Amino acid sequence: MSGSETIGVDLGGTKMLIGVLSGTERLYEQREASTGQTEDELVELLVREVTEARDARPNVTAVGLGIPATINHDEGIAVSAVNLPLADLPIREIVSERVGLPVFVDNDGNVAALAEYLYGAAQGKPHMVMLTVGTGIGGGLILDGEIYRGSTGAGAELGHVVIQADGPPCQGNCPNHGCVESLASGTALGREGRAAAESAADSALGKLLADGKEVDGKAVTEAALAGDEIAVGVFDLIGGRLGVACASLANIFQPNAIVVGGGVIAAGDLLLEPARREVRERALNPMNQTPILEATLGNDAGMIGAAAMARSEVARVSA
Amino acid sequence: MSGSETIGVDLGGTKMLIGVLSGTERLYEQREASTGQTEDELVELLVREVTEARDARPNVTAVGLGIPATINHDEGIAVSAVNLPLADLPIREIVSERVGLPVFVDNDGNVAALAEYLYGAAQGKPHMVMLTVGTGIGGGLILDGEIYRGSTGAGAELGHVVIQADGPPCQGNCPNHGCVESLASGTALGREGRAAAESAADSALGKLLADGKEVDGKAVTEAALAGDEIAVGVFDLIGGRLGVACASLANIFQPNAIVVGGGVIAAGDLLLEPARREVRERALNPMNQTPILEATLGNDAGMIGAAAMARSEVARVSA
Repeated sequence: MSGSETIGVDLGGTKMLIGVLSGTERLYEQREASTGQTEDELVELLVREVTEARDARPNVTAVGLGIPATINHDEGIAVSAVNLPLADLPIREIVSERVGLPVFVDNDGNVAALAEYLYGAAQGKPHMVMLTVGTGIGGGLILDGEIYRGSTGAGAELGHVVIQADGPPCQGNCPNHGCVESLASGTALGREGRAAAESAADSALGKLLADGKEVDGKAVTEAALAGDEIAVGVFDLIGGRLGVACASLANIFQPNAIVVGGGVIAAGDLLLEPARREVRERALNPMNQTPILEATLGNDAGMIGAAAMARSEVARVSA
Repeated sequence: MSGSETIGVDLGGTKMLIGVLSGTERLYEQREASTGQTEDELVELLVREVTEARDARPNVTAVGLGIPATINHDEGIAVSAVNLPLADLPIREIVSERVGLPVFVDNDGNVAALAEYLYGAAQGKPHMVMLTVGTGIGGGLILDGEIYRGSTGAGAELGHVVIQADGPPCQGNCPNHGCVESLASGTALGREGRAAAESAADSALGKLLADGKEVDGKAVTEAALAGDEIAVGVFDLIGGRLGVACASLANIFQPNAIVVGGGVIAAGDLLLEPARREVRERALNPMNQTPILEATLGNDAGMIGAAAMARSEVARVSA
């Protein structure tokens, strides 16, 4: 396998990232492209980008797609997605026929976790849980060095672990109440930031509100990083809630680490220290010592992980 | 492996169950013995029983021990236990030297799950989650047909998944609040049963209380099975809470089934129907269709699973 290379594609809500993973160079000619407005457009743009990458690198042996959707991994189908025009699309077969290479598809959270395990924060940690905290909270599981997908590939929905059974309704297509996504996502950060701004007019957040500016997750993060105590308190609340879910996940998996990525991790330890406190105080011994680490690959995690997933699938097939 | 047999031991708080698992007969001469009062006594009694089983069955190739304790599986150590006099005991090495057979140790919840997967409610369901609802709530995970243990063997503490972050303190050595164990175990069933009895003097439970009789989990179960509406309502509460945890576990694992065993399952669907309702209403599609099944092996699950675990370890070593 040493000479082989794989293409990785991270399909986001508005753009896709394409790169080539090779044993020696890791990432070759990373590109960015629109995902289009319709399913047909998405497929055309995807095929065009993958074809270009294939033509540029003759040693490419397979393609991996990381998609923010419910995936049937074995059948290569994107079952349903909130932010992409995809429904029951046999994307593996379609792309494979068009580009003449084996294609493998997986959930974006799963492949991001694989990337952090192989090249990022969790290197050498074969049991790891990843939480991607953005608008929602995505998840990925690496167990014994392999992606865990559930019985047909829809598992690892770690944002939809309940932390408060009588909590607020969750987001998007989730019918649950009190999920960690509803209480500790970037959306919740903005909501709690606005509530804090309203109750503390003298704070940096209160002044933003008085000036008619938007108090969202980004604004709360900037204020907290600049030392505003009210904003730091909002992160204490949000990070603590994240930590309640981390304590449950630590008790379930006894992982070598829990890795936190996504946009909200821009706040770093302002988010993670309260989470670590809850894990220390709530998890059983020895799970209360589970390291809670910051992801290191940022926006490249999905693309790197998609390519690495394809590489491991090729190795499995030829084993 | 067809001619080989393994000994399984389920080490309970006051007694142990010993049996031999063979491909054709499954259980041979099942026995019961005391576990003694001290660590030394426990080891002596265990060695005596295993030696007898070994002498009776010449094809025995290994011994499996299922122990209600934190286990280091790879090193064969019982790290800590709440209800047994065991602490940092290298029980695999000790028993192996004394009986002259390979010995493998595992958590009792893990091996019970393996038994239900191989011989019980979850046959043919390679991704399964097991909850054992008794005084506490134990857990076991079978992922892709194998026991999942965590990084050193302390994982699958599924009773310590939070369902209400600001809930009551948990039991035993758990520092957490609002674990499903604190809200939906047999202990919680008795507590909620007493509360219901106090507020409904005319109910069957209220009359028990007035007569000075104990209102515990068993009494609530009997009253509910006899049709007392107040007792049925207590099961609706407890089963619903169990279902909140099941919804989280379904979202995490997308298992083929969740199997519920332990003493409280005597109430059958009175416990499981409210749990199924919560999973249907709370879990994401398709995890909201996860079957919630009653365990079928009862008290034999630990012993059968311990023997099956030893058999699979022998196969792994010789592979």
